[in-house]
Amino acid sequence: MTEKNAFLEAFKRTKYQLVGHGPRNFQVLKEALSSYDEDYESDVYGNGKVIEDFQEKMATYLGKDAAVFFPSGTMAQQIALRIWCDRNGIHKVAYHPLSHLEIHEEDGLKELHRIEPILLADKNRLIELEDVLSLEEDISCLLIELPQREIGGQLPDFEVLESISTYCREKGIKLQLDGARLFEILPYYQKTAAEVCQLFDSVYVSFYKGIGGLAGAILAGDQDFIEESKIWKRRHGGDLISLYPYIITADYYFDKRIHKMATYYENAIELARLFNECKATSTLPSIPVSNMFHVHFEAPIENVKSILIDVYEETNIGITGNLRPIDENSCYCEISLGDQFSKVPKETISNVFQILNDKLSGIVK
Amino acid sequence: MTEKNAFLEAFKRTKYQLVGHGPRNFQVLKEALSSYDEDYESDVYGNGKVIEDFQEKMATYLGKDAAVFFPSGTMAQQIALRIWCDRNGIHKVAYHPLSHLEIHEEDGLKELHRIEPILLADKNRLIELEDVLSLEEDISCLLIELPQREIGGQLPDFEVLESISTYCREKGIKLQLDGARLFEILPYYQKTAAEVCQLFDSVYVSFYKGIGGLAGAILAGDQDFIEESKIWKRRHGGDLISLYPYIITADYYFDKRIHKMATYYENAIELARLFNECKATSTLPSIPVSNMFHVHFEAPIENVKSILIDVYEETNIGITGNLRPIDENSCYCEISLGDQFSKVPKETISNVFQILNDKLSGIVK
Repeated sequence: MTEKNAFLEAFKRTKYQLVGHGPRNFQVLKEALSSYDEDYESDVYGNGKVIEDFQEKMATYLGKDAAVFFPSGTMAQQIALRIWCDRNGIHKVAYHPLSHLEIHEEDGLKELHRIEPILLADKNRLIELEDVLSLEEDISCLLIELPQREIGGQLPDFEVLESISTYCREKGIKLQLDGARLFEILPYYQKTAAEVCQLFDSVYVSFYKGIGGLAGAILAGDQDFIEESKIWKRRHGGDLISLYPYIITADYYFDKRIHKMATYYENAIELARLFNECKATSTLPSIPVSNMFHVHFEAPIENVKSILIDVYEETNIGITGNLRPIDENSCYCEISLGDQFSKVPKETISNVFQILNDKLSGIVK
Repeated sequence: MTEKNAFLEAFKRTKYQLVGHGPRNFQVLKEALSSYDEDYESDVYGNGKVIEDFQEKMATYLGKDAAVFFPSGTMAQQIALRIWCDRNGIHKVAYHPLSHLEIHEEDGLKELHRIEPILLADKNRLIELEDVLSLEEDISCLLIELPQREIGGQLPDFEVLESISTYCREKGIKLQLDGARLFEILPYYQKTAAEVCQLFDSVYVSFYKGIGGLAGAILAGDQDFIEESKIWKRRHGGDLISLYPYIITADYYFDKRIHKMATYYENAIELARLFNECKATSTLPSIPVSNMFHVHFEAPIENVKSILIDVYEETNIGITGNLRPIDENSCYCEISLGDQFSKVPKETISNVFQILNDKLSGIVK
């Protein structure tokens, strides 16, 4: 049963929101679907124009031989790691301690694939070349997430990525890109997707973060790798007779938003600056490198929730619907910029932050 | 790349079809989606009104404590078997040699779950109580598919099911229902879904066969079994942020078609009779027990294809788009009755079968 969440409800009631693309409602699908004729044919178990066209489009965009559409990134990435491990004969991989695979997938990689992950780097920082160099065990694959979401969406310098890629190729370690937010980092790197992806052997991208689709993922790589991934897709129960609701929304919103990533990134920088001017408030990273960042409040979560609800009601502008505790005296939220920010009347935004700052100043020394 | 299939294309070009609910095109989704307001909220990772309401509706319909929506039956059933095996500590199950798990899932059960299946009964007949009694190895779960699709959709007597259920309960063997076509057999058994399901510990049903939805499945059982299945759903990569396109179509077409199953069944009996009157043609079963049956032609597949294409072009009525070889001199197709049959002008159907019979008589002694 869904519990009533007063904080989330207060956020949803606001007229404008600083974050996201808007509510996850049926209009998201209706809009994309209305651009197709009613007699357009469904994909059928991975075949058909609607899925093949999109896979080809994404393979080209990512600069890879081939691509396959998956219902989820969880499925796509476990499968990528399994293929590399099976080929190499070593069922060990390495990734960041806060990787999605480690903290959000109920240990699927271990329970389903018997793959042992080695956690690289401290959880509060990025993986560096030195972490890879100092690996004491043989691994088949290194997974790198760009940006590293759970630490606010941080990015290594591109040169670090290049050096890790060069080293892994020398050592025969496959490199998998967790590109859940790949589109969102291209303006910072000033690279094309293909330029980033050529450092990696296989790549996963998602369509319901910055793109704002319904769900779904693309896995891209060499032709034989992709063909093998389709067998595993069937094993996982992901080879659905129809995946088109996800494909058409991915395609539609990709076309609609891929050129807006620089705007989202610039808006994130502006918004982070406003947060950092508030009492007891800081962002991670301090200057965002994508459309996302985390906001840390040095105050108990219940106090911050109460303040934010007041701000929402006074201004009719929502900041976040999801605040999480760090410890008894601090909490944080994740901010992702999308289409909504540009719709907020400019003059009201500084007012929001003035009220927020005043209220925080009232409870923090 | 999708290969052109001349036979399938000829079938699709016909104005009327004896089988199915109609083309798998975007209208299927558009029709269901149009019954919802644009601001209806998406499910979010298994929570929200749209998914919870449907799960509750199906749990009630199936007479079980709880139910969970899965993107596919492949995922749902592997997970059901895994839970029963883990609980019992024996990673062996039994099912029919032509079970979906054995022939259509690329060995997912073995590759992902390390569960060993024991194949019960000869592949050309149903599982009987004697097969279960004569099991020499301990198993955690017996899976029974109703109807047994790959042998034309045959059904055991209900009393046989009851005796198998009683025996399994005595022996502590869990019973899983592969009810991919459960709705379709209720008119033959003259039972409610709940009356059939109470013989089983866990039940899977599908929404894109007789119901005619997009994709998706329900797994139903005890509350704790269902809660555990949700963890595995996440591990498999099936806990999508949005599953509603499948849920709303499942729900919409369930309401639209659940009361038509008796009609589909009666039409199947009528259609099977017409096939059985044709030269070199027989159906399996000879009298259907659901909306489905197989048609066997005692002639080489290329000859039958050629004849059927002629029939389609002469009558503008399609019979099947998928003919499969048995051996050099015979082939078969699967027939599933749906909404289409009632739309075909009655007087033209006997004409179709007269032409078919004439043409088959021309090539078979």
